[in-house]
Amino acid sequence: MVLKSFVQVDADSHFPLENLPYGIFKSEQQSPRPCVAIGEFVFDLSVISSAGLFNGPFLKDSDCFHQPSLNKFVGMGRPAWKEARTTIQKLLSVDEPTLRDNAILREKSLLPMNKVQMLLPTVIGDYTDFFSSMYHARNCGIMFRGPENAVNSNWFHLPIAYHGRASSIVVSGTDITRPRGQSHPVGNSPPYFGPSRKLDFELEMAAVVGPGNELGKPVDVNEAADHIFGLVLMNDWSARDIQAWECVPLGPFLGKSFGTTLSPWIVTLDALEPFSCDAPKQEPQPLPYLAEKNSKNYDISLEVRIKSAGQEQESVLTKSNFKHLYWTITQQVAHHTINGCNLRPGDLLGTGTISGPEPDSLGCLLELTWNGKKSLTLNGLPRTFLEDGDEVVLTGVCKGDGYNVGFGTCSGKIIPAHN
Amino acid sequence: MVLKSFVQVDADSHFPLENLPYGIFKSEQQSPRPCVAIGEFVFDLSVISSAGLFNGPFLKDSDCFHQPSLNKFVGMGRPAWKEARTTIQKLLSVDEPTLRDNAILREKSLLPMNKVQMLLPTVIGDYTDFFSSMYHARNCGIMFRGPENAVNSNWFHLPIAYHGRASSIVVSGTDITRPRGQSHPVGNSPPYFGPSRKLDFELEMAAVVGPGNELGKPVDVNEAADHIFGLVLMNDWSARDIQAWECVPLGPFLGKSFGTTLSPWIVTLDALEPFSCDAPKQEPQPLPYLAEKNSKNYDISLEVRIKSAGQEQESVLTKSNFKHLYWTITQQVAHHTINGCNLRPGDLLGTGTISGPEPDSLGCLLELTWNGKKSLTLNGLPRTFLEDGDEVVLTGVCKGDGYNVGFGTCSGKIIPAHN
Repeated sequence: MVLKSFVQVDADSHFPLENLPYGIFKSEQQSPRPCVAIGEFVFDLSVISSAGLFNGPFLKDSDCFHQPSLNKFVGMGRPAWKEARTTIQKLLSVDEPTLRDNAILREKSLLPMNKVQMLLPTVIGDYTDFFSSMYHARNCGIMFRGPENAVNSNWFHLPIAYHGRASSIVVSGTDITRPRGQSHPVGNSPPYFGPSRKLDFELEMAAVVGPGNELGKPVDVNEAADHIFGLVLMNDWSARDIQAWECVPLGPFLGKSFGTTLSPWIVTLDALEPFSCDAPKQEPQPLPYLAEKNSKNYDISLEVRIKSAGQEQESVLTKSNFKHLYWTITQQVAHHTINGCNLRPGDLLGTGTISGPEPDSLGCLLELTWNGKKSLTLNGLPRTFLEDGDEVVLTGVCKGDGYNVGFGTCSGKIIPAHN
Repeated sequence: MVLKSFVQVDADSHFPLENLPYGIFKSEQQSPRPCVAIGEFVFDLSVISSAGLFNGPFLKDSDCFHQPSLNKFVGMGRPAWKEARTTIQKLLSVDEPTLRDNAILREKSLLPMNKVQMLLPTVIGDYTDFFSSMYHARNCGIMFRGPENAVNSNWFHLPIAYHGRASSIVVSGTDITRPRGQSHPVGNSPPYFGPSRKLDFELEMAAVVGPGNELGKPVDVNEAADHIFGLVLMNDWSARDIQAWECVPLGPFLGKSFGTTLSPWIVTLDALEPFSCDAPKQEPQPLPYLAEKNSKNYDISLEVRIKSAGQEQESVLTKSNFKHLYWTITQQVAHHTINGCNLRPGDLLGTGTISGPEPDSLGCLLELTWNGKKSLTLNGLPRTFLEDGDEVVLTGVCKGDGYNVGFGTCSGKIIPAHN
């Protein structure tokens, strides 16, 4: 049965009463504060909190909705999240008079989304990026190491990851400056230096950490879901030429750290639960600390579109799905903490590029153009990597019976390199 | 001429009036707040600020010394740092009556160091670790790739680095739990899983970022010194077995992220200036964005000592020097930001292991024992890697004419793995 709100929600909206994703907005009148999305409105949780309408045991005395980020709320854990969801779902329901019949409070708390500015939902202490799509790992391996040794032997035993740069994470809609940097020398000449010539997007999602763990105390894989508040879309922009030259032996650095774009809405695991599905069978069987009683993925349809400078219409670049990931987000949490490393509320765990098995489900231009060796056709012209003026838009949506649980969009436009 | 304070400073103290390193302390009576070290005292800057004694243009209306971290102060830039240094040096001078002759203010502002607890000096948004000692890079290369290809071809063109984990950075004196994790399988068996069997220290220093830069706006190498507030000692604890198994293709992750120890005192570049020296000649010449008008290192004597469980005396493990670094900290800043990546006040830039050219100047057990192939003798017993109960102590000092500018110590004890 589809839930019904007194707020108008179009049939194709990403944000019905079943979703209620969390974000942080500000406007000319309002300082940054938590909200959820409902239809084409943001629902100001600070107003609802001030009105005393969060009256359950976890939230009634909390100032978590009077913060400029969601860190405090996500750190409170699942009981508080459940209480908030139940309260908000009830308050926005068509059958509930409290808000429906209170024009002043309604006007104060429900603001048109197009009149506010969305910000990053959390202050991100640390950002980790995994490498959890086997298709992506295999394609990269074939490209750079050849088909015999495509996937390194460690890959099937642990969810490979690296530490990313937190400072350069930006919210959807922020322009991305083309990075400058070094790339491979040709022959005996010095390395190339200049604007990246192989600028790429990466279709990813990322988990937002909830309570987290103390330093030295690993999280059990079967309790790891309680440490994940929800998911966002993520574009892990990559400069392939910079990355290729710098990455031996310590991994990606400046090829990644010039910018990473997040969607503003965190869709909670509670909202995603109806779309959970079995994770792929893992062979070899993972070590006990990674063995889950219930190994879950989510069926989230993903799409990447591009609009070049001067183009009116977006073109679809690829379609993939979150369920293609080999390593689950709960395994990622268990692995990340097995050495005692502490996760903190609001930390970000990227999935890595989510490529699927089909040629049109590859999650980046590196794979789609086989490192520039074959062109795509864009707007009638051949294309390998991103050009200045390109706008890349990621979307993600779970299709329910008569409703969507969606992530909105995660977009960014490339602007020319700094001179 | 040696500066003289009315506070007693022993001849071998690390903290004379020439130094004045910054830290954050707390005590039972005092919430966390900024201080400098003088002799065996901490000098509470919040008290001095409240007394109106910071009366220069940058500091007189600032609340930077009423913060629980140094981030605000380090973000203010060199003019504010100079003003603070001049003011503090004058206030503590033997010739200046303001504090010397005010017993109440003196007692309030000067607290015995052994009665307070030192905390991390800044909130670290991002931590980057470089790989800037050629000796260390070469030794690791010989060990893992053989002598022909010891130093990868990119190494001499750019200061290689990776993103580290900020959450697990702890202050000197914090115990380090031996990490558990996977390491290389033997033959066809699954990977080893358990407590690390190759736990190591790494002798490093780290630069604390000052004002930093906006996303998309690189820092010029010749202005980079204005973005470095000072240096600390750093022990980048490493689990060599975990690291070796996980690090292809994305670099070190859980082999590092279980803990990184910092000394509590940030010694400013102003205090280090008398100990600056020429950096090594770089061949090939670096690209223009890394070419400095004045390429500077610092002559800082470094030492690592160890005390095993039950041992009374520390043994010296190695002696090295900051001046052995090939890439300078200003080149590190220029490289880090050339792609537009933003540095924020309080961010940390580790140097990488500081190995020197001599066999007794190697900065980690990996090198000292050649990956466990040859033993050291410790307490009469053979030893390759760290054992539970080992306490590792880093120190660093610049020897002036009649005084030291020192870093104090950076220590940590290994406790058994979590079960």
